[in-house]
Amino acid sequence: MVKVAIIGATGYTGAEVIKLILRHPEAELVHLSALAEECGKVEAIFGQFKGRCDLAIEPLDMEKLSGLADVALCCLPHKVSMGFVPKLLDAGLKVVDFSADYRLKDVDVYEKYYSVKHTDTDNIAKAVYGLPELFREEIKDKDLVANPGCFPTGALLALAPVLKENLIETSKIIVNSVTGISGAGKNPAGKFHFPNMNENFFAYSIGTHRHMPEMEQIAGEVCGGAVQILFQPHAGPFDRGILSTVYCVPKKKIEAEELSRLYRDFYNAEQFVQVCDDVPPVKNVAGTNYCHVYPTVVKDMVVIFSAIDNLVKGASGQAVQNMNIIFGLEESLSLL
Amino acid sequence: MVKVAIIGATGYTGAEVIKLILRHPEAELVHLSALAEECGKVEAIFGQFKGRCDLAIEPLDMEKLSGLADVALCCLPHKVSMGFVPKLLDAGLKVVDFSADYRLKDVDVYEKYYSVKHTDTDNIAKAVYGLPELFREEIKDKDLVANPGCFPTGALLALAPVLKENLIETSKIIVNSVTGISGAGKNPAGKFHFPNMNENFFAYSIGTHRHMPEMEQIAGEVCGGAVQILFQPHAGPFDRGILSTVYCVPKKKIEAEELSRLYRDFYNAEQFVQVCDDVPPVKNVAGTNYCHVYPTVVKDMVVIFSAIDNLVKGASGQAVQNMNIIFGLEESLSLL
Amino acid sequence: MVKVAIIGATGYTGAEVIKLILRHPEAELVHLSALAEECGKVEAIFGQFKGRCDLAIEPLDMEKLSGLADVALCCLPHKVSMGFVPKLLDAGLKVVDFSADYRLKDVDVYEKYYSVKHTDTDNIAKAVYGLPELFREEIKDKDLVANPGCFPTGALLALAPVLKENLIETSKIIVNSVTGISGAGKNPAGKFHFPNMNENFFAYSIGTHRHMPEMEQIAGEVCGGAVQILFQPHAGPFDRGILSTVYCVPKKKIEAEELSRLYRDFYNAEQFVQVCDDVPPVKNVAGTNYCHVYPTVVKDMVVIFSAIDNLVKGASGQAVQNMNIIFGLEESLSLL
Amino acid sequence: MVKVAIIGATGYTGAEVIKLILRHPEAELVHLSALAEECGKVEAIFGQFKGRCDLAIEPLDMEKLSGLADVALCCLPHKVSMGFVPKLLDAGLKVVDFSADYRLKDVDVYEKYYSVKHTDTDNIAKAVYGLPELFREEIKDKDLVANPGCFPTGALLALAPVLKENLIETSKIIVNSVTGISGAGKNPAGKFHFPNMNENFFAYSIGTHRHMPEMEQIAGEVCGGAVQILFQPHAGPFDRGILSTVYCVPKKKIEAEELSRLYRDFYNAEQFVQVCDDVPPVKNVAGTNYCHVYPTVVKDMVVIFSAIDNLVKGASGQAVQNMNIIFGLEESLSLL
Repeated sequence: MVKVAIIGATGYTGAEVIKLILRHPEAELVHLSALAEECGKVEAIFGQFKGRCDLAIEPLDMEKLSGLADVALCCLPHKVSMGFVPKLLDAGLKVVDFSADYRLKDVDVYEKYYSVKHTDTDNIAKAVYGLPELFREEIKDKDLVANPGCFPTGALLALAPVLKENLIETSKIIVNSVTGISGAGKNPAGKFHFPNMNENFFAYSIGTHRHMPEMEQIAGEVCGGAVQILFQPHAGPFDRGILSTVYCVPKKKIEAEELSRLYRDFYNAEQFVQVCDDVPPVKNVAGTNYCHVYPTVVKDMVVIFSAIDNLVKGASGQAVQNMNIIFGLEESLSLL
Repeated sequence: MVKVAIIGATGYTGAEVIKLILRHPEAELVHLSALAEECGKVEAIFGQFKGRCDLAIEPLDMEKLSGLADVALCCLPHKVSMGFVPKLLDAGLKVVDFSADYRLKDVDVYEKYYSVKHTDTDNIAKAVYGLPELFREEIKDKDLVANPGCFPTGALLALAPVLKENLIETSKIIVNSVTGISGAGKNPAGKFHFPNMNENFFAYSIGTHRHMPEMEQIAGEVCGGAVQILFQPHAGPFDRGILSTVYCVPKKKIEAEELSRLYRDFYNAEQFVQVCDDVPPVKNVAGTNYCHVYPTVVKDMVVIFSAIDNLVKGASGQAVQNMNIIFGLEESLSLL
Repeated sequence: MVKVAIIGATGYTGAEVIKLILRHPEAELVHLSALAEECGKVEAIFGQFKGRCDLAIEPLDMEKLSGLADVALCCLPHKVSMGFVPKLLDAGLKVVDFSADYRLKDVDVYEKYYSVKHTDTDNIAKAVYGLPELFREEIKDKDLVANPGCFPTGALLALAPVLKENLIETSKIIVNSVTGISGAGKNPAGKFHFPNMNENFFAYSIGTHRHMPEMEQIAGEVCGGAVQILFQPHAGPFDRGILSTVYCVPKKKIEAEELSRLYRDFYNAEQFVQVCDDVPPVKNVAGTNYCHVYPTVVKDMVVIFSAIDNLVKGASGQAVQNMNIIFGLEESLSLL
Repeated sequence: MVKVAIIGATGYTGAEVIKLILRHPEAELVHLSALAEECGKVEAIFGQFKGRCDLAIEPLDMEKLSGLADVALCCLPHKVSMGFVPKLLDAGLKVVDFSADYRLKDVDVYEKYYSVKHTDTDNIAKAVYGLPELFREEIKDKDLVANPGCFPTGALLALAPVLKENLIETSKIIVNSVTGISGAGKNPAGKFHFPNMNENFFAYSIGTHRHMPEMEQIAGEVCGGAVQILFQPHAGPFDRGILSTVYCVPKKKIEAEELSRLYRDFYNAEQFVQVCDDVPPVKNVAGTNYCHVYPTVVKDMVVIFSAIDNLVKGASGQAVQNMNIIFGLEESLSLL
């Protein structure tokens, strides 16, 4: 049994990963931690776990953790995570980190978009970007996995095949995404107050979303060159899911059928990426670790639709998938 | 033109009443006030009024107000209102007060349920409970109208005919209500954070809701005796509307048809109360000042369904209806 | 491995039970059937199963089924089910039947409420009502389990302790319930068209809902006498969950604390019924097989709140729970 | 008083326009018609009009209509409308037609996209495209106004200033839109069944939506040349509103500030188009006739956001606005 600690367990990704580990046949929860003021019995913090989990969420005790856990699923927010990850690694744990702190290889880009000095640059180089469909082999060997952002997960799975095959203009990509509101986290805010968000729909973070450079970096790795992406997120009145509509200019004319064949070949061995024959509704992937992708051609442009659950494939499910890979377990355990 | 000031204009009832007065053919907005920290152009506070209202919301200036306005629609919260209402009356304005401060005639009950000492008891006696369908004549003469609570509006319109006719046991009334979330006000809170409230449904204020004694007082006035009501509110994932399902024990067996006839007679002259032949969906009254009532008999019990919009008939619309009555205008102006 | 056939697999309960069996470590899907015109690959009918289930949904072939499956989870609608259940039993399968056809022991009541002649009355007597928390021992021995209705599941778990202890007036029970719309099934209808149901809330089936006699029968069995229940369902704009607010008149005064203790004792050994200290939000049980119950006292009345997921504890999850019991498996397999 | 007939009054646009005319100070409803099988009292068809409108919806009687009405607001569907419009014109009525039958000047394009032979081509030439902000002067003189489609209204108001000023590449425009579900009409369908549409989000009509050629035609008129638009609609779980996110390639570099100034100048005299300083939430325009537009520049691309209510500015409100213009009334009557 893999012994799992969840650091920063009181948010939505924490709840989702607790659920997945409780259901995991070869892993068990041994420790849950959070800020002192958020601690307490799991069922007191998440009513849905009443009778399902006897653990308490406790302040982090690195000493205790060291002998107890094999892996830390670190759900801390950006900027906070890099203060704890080095200690977790020093304590001998494998770490799957949910934050952005180890995703961007270029420290300057990180510091520009996150407006903070990076305090653990050494470990950036040692981290692997935890998108198994693209970097599975590297994940196997690593102590530190930077679990991808939710929007980049959906966008990169949509783009990887055409990028890899060098089929599109890499400076003219538009990623138009819509997310459910669990993506905004659990802290109440005016925009997400029910009477404001319900029956509403809006764009946000115009030209400034932090997932934009993350997409560009990984897209660049995939195609082996610079990529420029105009990423525009929107928020819609539902809990879970991201639909990305990706617009690309093909380098030369391509037919929808050829594109579809390319995607099917590319993801042939991938359980969690399904290439569809029609546009994927977000509800078909909600609550699952699947990504549904539908590539097509409209008026000579390549248009790719991808749907994921932001909390599962876009966060906690992918973290468990990464954990399974690291420990040599069947990759889909607890994820079906 | 009736000159209208709105005091405490920055909440949901404020926005609703601004909309109604903007559309009113014989009234005009002359002043909007709020706490200093919430002031600003109307369109900056309520994006929906961009280009529709040039007024600014300003800190209350009683001197200025005095010569300017004929009536104050006072949207301040409970406990705060009684600090301002006497000054507004002294300044010569008529007042329609949205708070509970002048609804309960029994100061002890008020102080118990609102946990505060009442500081303007003199004006309690001078106020009339502003439910026009029951107290229209008294409203005409009064300077101070206590605009009813949202739940009491729906429950009392459901109960009035059987109470008036002395047909039900007055100690065994159950009012089971469901409200949309605009009723919770505009301040973000964990329970009403979109990912918590969406796809959710729950009961609250078990045995303690402040609208319970308000219902009991007015129900008692209607039937001329003591009334005991078990009022249980619930919150559902929608913006607007209250459905009340009211369970009563009839004093003697009654048929549904007879009950229906009684209700039609009782509300015959009332434009805003419609007696229905079937259960009223909340959506049929959303955005309107109407109350739809459907009385029936199930297994020898009297069951009455009533639907209103909590922000219109349950607050701002009813306030405008009261204002129209006070100033001798057609009662439905701006409400159709 | 228990070999499972799902009969009538194309509805919402079918999809839910497919998901649960796919995840079940000691059961496997061997056959899925439906009406000829609804057949096809599972992933063509339920997009969420793309890449997760290779079976096709086929017209029922009793001969083939006979050697193939150990148990039939029969998701056929009321009235249709009784045409197939005897054949499934004859073929040597255990049957968990989702319909109402074997729930009501009194054929007259069945025929009155379902407006049809019962064609398999022999098997009514052989069936057990599959509410494990009340009838676990009997379920173990039976070939035919009548899986309870969704509303009765929530209402009966709320009422059982006070009925068993003879604490309430059994002729004055009111069950006021609210259900999410998955309860209405998958066939489009005007009332449930999104622009009609969204932002709406309404009562339905006034005095006529078929779950009323079902509740009364089982409640009567629990307390050993006649029970009369006024059951009033409502529909709210969410997918999953039922909140029942149950109002009872106690035979003699009882305190909330005593009631709470009684419930905790009663459900002490039950994993799937959790007695809460506060009102249970529907969202805490959505997607789970749990029932959260909160009993309390308001103005001398006993008020009990219970929350379940109508598709899980109210249908497919409870069916799997029953299947687990029948085959001597751990009762919670695939349900955590 | 302008005497108004509504033809095809039983859909969502019919209900919306009935509401607007009931509130209109200088217009009155004189006739409502629909298919025979949909006729009846208005309040029987639309519960929200109980007590508000005594008219019955009747089968169309052209003879009766002729002397009765000044204008027909024709809410018939595409393909049906062209069978009635010539008769209405012959009867001496002005017509505002909600369908697409008179919007496309090129009959071949119409016949390709609507898969039907056009049977009233003569009147196409006599019709004006009823977007008042672009074609007000022409509307004044016309007997037949083709009321614009909902998506084109939002997209064209977003694009008009940059098209008019010749600032963008006219072959590379992407209009990515999201609509609420009232846009799908009132007929129940599987996709829009509440449990399917709720918590869902999807793209549809890939490369085939009929509003695409409509946008291209009018955009071409505005800039005086050919325009090619990739229009991709999506459906989201809310009732009302369209948010369009429009991506354009500028001919030469432009700054956001300059763009904003251009839009403010362009729409300076327009009451119903408000140029915003930030992204417009759909909820700010829901229930109103306003269009909120926000133009900006992201990574050297021009990105314009526009929000409208699909049933008001996108249909019934705009029709009333057109009617007001035709009859020389104040343009905003009943629309504030």
